Amino acid sequence: MKRKPEDRIILGIDPGTNITGYGIIECSGKEPRLITLGVIELSGFKDHFLKIKHIFERTTGLIEEYHPGELAIESPFYGKNVQSMLKLGRAQGAAISAALSRSVPVFEYAPRKIKMSITGLGSASKEQVAFMLMSILKFREDEIILDATDGLAAALCHYYQSNKPAAGKSYNSWKDFISKNPGRVNKSGG
Amino acid sequence: MKRKPEDRIILGIDPGTNITGYGIIECSGKEPRLITLGVIELSGFKDHFLKIKHIFERTTGLIEEYHPGELAIESPFYGKNVQSMLKLGRAQGAAISAALSRSVPVFEYAPRKIKMSITGLGSASKEQVAFMLMSILKFREDEIILDATDGLAAALCHYYQSNKPAAGKSYNSWKDFISKNPGRVNKSGG
Repeated sequence: MKRKPEDRIILGIDPGTNITGYGIIECSGKEPRLITLGVIELSGFKDHFLKIKHIFERTTGLIEEYHPGELAIESPFYGKNVQSMLKLGRAQGAAISAALSRSVPVFEYAPRKIKMSITGLGSASKEQVAFMLMSILKFREDEIILDATDGLAAALCHYYQSNKPAAGKSYNSWKDFISKNPGRVNKSGG
Repeated sequence: MKRKPEDRIILGIDPGTNITGYGIIECSGKEPRLITLGVIELSGFKDHFLKIKHIFERTTGLIEEYHPGELAIESPFYGKNVQSMLKLGRAQGAAISAALSRSVPVFEYAPRKIKMSITGLGSASKEQVAFMLMSILKFREDEIILDATDGLAAALCHYYQSNKPAAGKSYNSWKDFISKNPGRVNKSGG
């Protein structure tokens, strides 16, 4: 695939030790475009370390094939128990290491933030997120792999978050602007 | 450093996001021998991802310099809270990925198991472990970096665990032997 230098490729990944979903989008024109989405199936590996190795190698493979400039990762900030969080952390560590070792910067987003960014609803279901992704990125239902959509959603969330113009937050009033930008107002009048 | 093919090099590592300790031992003769020990200082990095990157790169560097055949990692199975366990998991994931991506197998040990293996006491203090390591590996107190000893202890623990001969567990009695090795006793007398 030929790309222009200004093309922006984002790899989104949702690491898990049973299944790791990913999606890649291209943001060159006005609208983001889906390049690919898929899953790294890990439930077949009995050994925990083999899972970690596989996540590292597959993430490295995706980076080498699609040359993303950024990695967006879904990361919960709380979880069921410390043991599962340790294992999740290792899976994330493998994906993060794969990216950073190839100088791809990493950005993390909480699941709620991602859902909010895609659907406008922090408590949206997997299906609702998938439906919105289909609508925004214009792909068909038969192309969807539900477990991959969390990774794809992370990529699109990062695109929206990083693409916000500085003034995009729109101030309610001059008073609001002053309170949010104290350093930009010259109080001495000089 | 020149080594014989039968030399066994073990890298022990105790990953943490503020400091990561490591130690490398060589097990060629009868007694294990200290090659090096040190710390990867991470508290200076404000960005969490830079810490992960640094752990991955430094572990990779140690593997390339000393060519260990095995990585022993200290890993708690419980922790204070899920958030700190996620970050610890990422640090571990970086070290594990560095090893596995260079085909170095990984073995994990709980802190209590490591302390027990080195000192005979699962609740031993850091200083007690350090003292035993000095005594076993014959290095002087001024050579010690206390934060590095947990990594070194993991390496030595792995050596002890993997080096146990089948009969090394010393049976208390013939009855004890039979109960622990049911498959090795020919009940039919044939």
